[in-house]
Amino acid sequence: MKNAAPKNFIIDIDGVMTNGQMLYNKNGKYIKIFGPDDSDMLSILKKYINICFITADKKGYAITKKRIVNDMGFKLYYVNVLDRVQWIDKKFNLKKTIYMGDSIFDSIALQKVAYGIAPKNADKYAKKSSKHITTASGGNRAVSEACVFILKKFFKINFFKLLK
Amino acid sequence: MKNAAPKNFIIDIDGVMTNGQMLYNKNGKYIKIFGPDDSDMLSILKKYINICFITADKKGYAITKKRIVNDMGFKLYYVNVLDRVQWIDKKFNLKKTIYMGDSIFDSIALQKVAYGIAPKNADKYAKKSSKHITTASGGNRAVSEACVFILKKFFKINFFKLLK
Amino acid sequence: MKNAAPKNFIIDIDGVMTNGQMLYNKNGKYIKIFGPDDSDMLSILKKYINICFITADKKGYAITKKRIVNDMGFKLYYVNVLDRVQWIDKKFNLKKTIYMGDSIFDSIALQKVAYGIAPKNADKYAKKSSKHITTASGGNRAVSEACVFILKKFFKINFFKLLK
Amino acid sequence: MKNAAPKNFIIDIDGVMTNGQMLYNKNGKYIKIFGPDDSDMLSILKKYINICFITADKKGYAITKKRIVNDMGFKLYYVNVLDRVQWIDKKFNLKKTIYMGDSIFDSIALQKVAYGIAPKNADKYAKKSSKHITTASGGNRAVSEACVFILKKFFKINFFKLLK
Repeated sequence: MKNAAPKNFIIDIDGVMTNGQMLYNKNGKYIKIFGPDDSDMLSILKKYINICFITADKKGYAITKKRIVNDMGFKLYYVNVLDRVQWIDKKFNLKKTIYMGDSIFDSIALQKVAYGIAPKNADKYAKKSSKHITTASGGNRAVSEACVFILKKFFKINFFKLLK
Repeated sequence: MKNAAPKNFIIDIDGVMTNGQMLYNKNGKYIKIFGPDDSDMLSILKKYINICFITADKKGYAITKKRIVNDMGFKLYYVNVLDRVQWIDKKFNLKKTIYMGDSIFDSIALQKVAYGIAPKNADKYAKKSSKHITTASGGNRAVSEACVFILKKFFKINFFKLLK
Repeated sequence: MKNAAPKNFIIDIDGVMTNGQMLYNKNGKYIKIFGPDDSDMLSILKKYINICFITADKKGYAITKKRIVNDMGFKLYYVNVLDRVQWIDKKFNLKKTIYMGDSIFDSIALQKVAYGIAPKNADKYAKKSSKHITTASGGNRAVSEACVFILKKFFKINFFKLLK
Repeated sequence: MKNAAPKNFIIDIDGVMTNGQMLYNKNGKYIKIFGPDDSDMLSILKKYINICFITADKKGYAITKKRIVNDMGFKLYYVNVLDRVQWIDKKFNLKKTIYMGDSIFDSIALQKVAYGIAPKNADKYAKKSSKHITTASGGNRAVSEACVFILKKFFKINFFKLLK
């Protein structure tokens, strides 16, 4: 079992699925910015691995839920930044999990999971703590690129050949 | 007829006419970001070649339609990312068509048309599959630059001299 | 009179005062993005030179007017991209005017005025047609930087020393 | 007392906590863009130093207040760009204060405080006037990075080790 593919791909929202920006109007957090290809590639990757999302953003939760749960059909969990290592281990087992995060607070989770991935725009500590850094930024194909990478590394599938 | 200019210029929306970003509020997809010069240059190029647009984005269709159909006066078709090669061939003939797209899912269409163009911000597979890559990004003059390029390459027109 | 300072500084809006992006929702053009310092520096420069703005954007005119006329207190004129050279000459005299623009359509005006300035993000033909290119982009201090440059070049004023 | 740590960390809003962009619709200034990690890191740093915010933006004050005062729980002061040096000295003592600002108008304050910090996106005069420039831009972890820097430089705390 030593080389078994991870069973779970857990993805942080802000700065990974979004570009990290929080657009405020006078009534509060109002808009988040998602990007191209991530949704389409995740709907392909989900045939191979359990995919879910976590966020620590309460005030933007309704926006995130609309995109991730209602429009894309994935599960979304609210997990504080400092509770993530324990939460992942209890619910999914750190050693069976790929985690993708961008924040300095994600650094320990990125170190302790089976495989940590950071987007190009991540904090420098998050990057140091990750095994792989995408060439794309969050909200600009970082997750799509990670999906292609995971298909190849863990499932020996060349997505580009699949397309032909 | 071997060197005849292409008859059609088909342009993808998200990431080509826009910068690819999808701004969400709690009610769903809300805003897309278009850029300068593309509309003005397309209104010049359309005298030389048939121009139309395709999108695979259902939830943002009303936004795209407002910009492309109502404000710019072009045709817009809804075509799934995996159906584009066949759709283009049936409706326009791949060999008579310039296609501009940015997604990994556009890669095969970009290879099979007479001339594939990708914007600077395109996925790396899309870029590899294209004959020309603009120095400008989608939503930031990529289409305007492609129009100037097409005028010169296929119609021997130096737009900059036209201006004088 | 050969070395007299120009009397007018005419500034294009989209891509110069804004970053060029046009945010669309399903009802049409909705938001433009302005940036820091430009307004504050223009309120200093206006003591030395006549400043006004031109735009060719009808659908975004109300947004532009709110920022430039109501909030900043400057004059704003609607002038088509192809009519700008004649309009500037008739109203202000090309040879007494500094023009700042970013579009390929601004190229001729940039060549024919006394002094043409393009922001970093400008079209490459616009840049080739300008005497000076700012290191900052439109909507991100390009106009503020141009003001400091104009104060020094044409009025021999070092703004940074003024601050002390 | 010569090497005592500064007592105050005063942070400018636009271009430091935000990316500097001001999103206008036809009714005026409507949206500002804040970013990841800053709020979380400030809630850690505030145990060590007095933190407050200043802004010179009247028209966007309600937006800024919602983010800084209501959502993050910090004090926010309205201070004109040209009054900042005196205001800081009177209220907090320049020599006991770290100031973080991005504008050309912040240059003198950045020079006169105990320690001036500018974000990567700052005006070039602001950068020249600062002792430290973050590798991150405003609204994209500049303040978070400054907090980590301050913890280490003035309080000898390695935040990354704290996380473990």
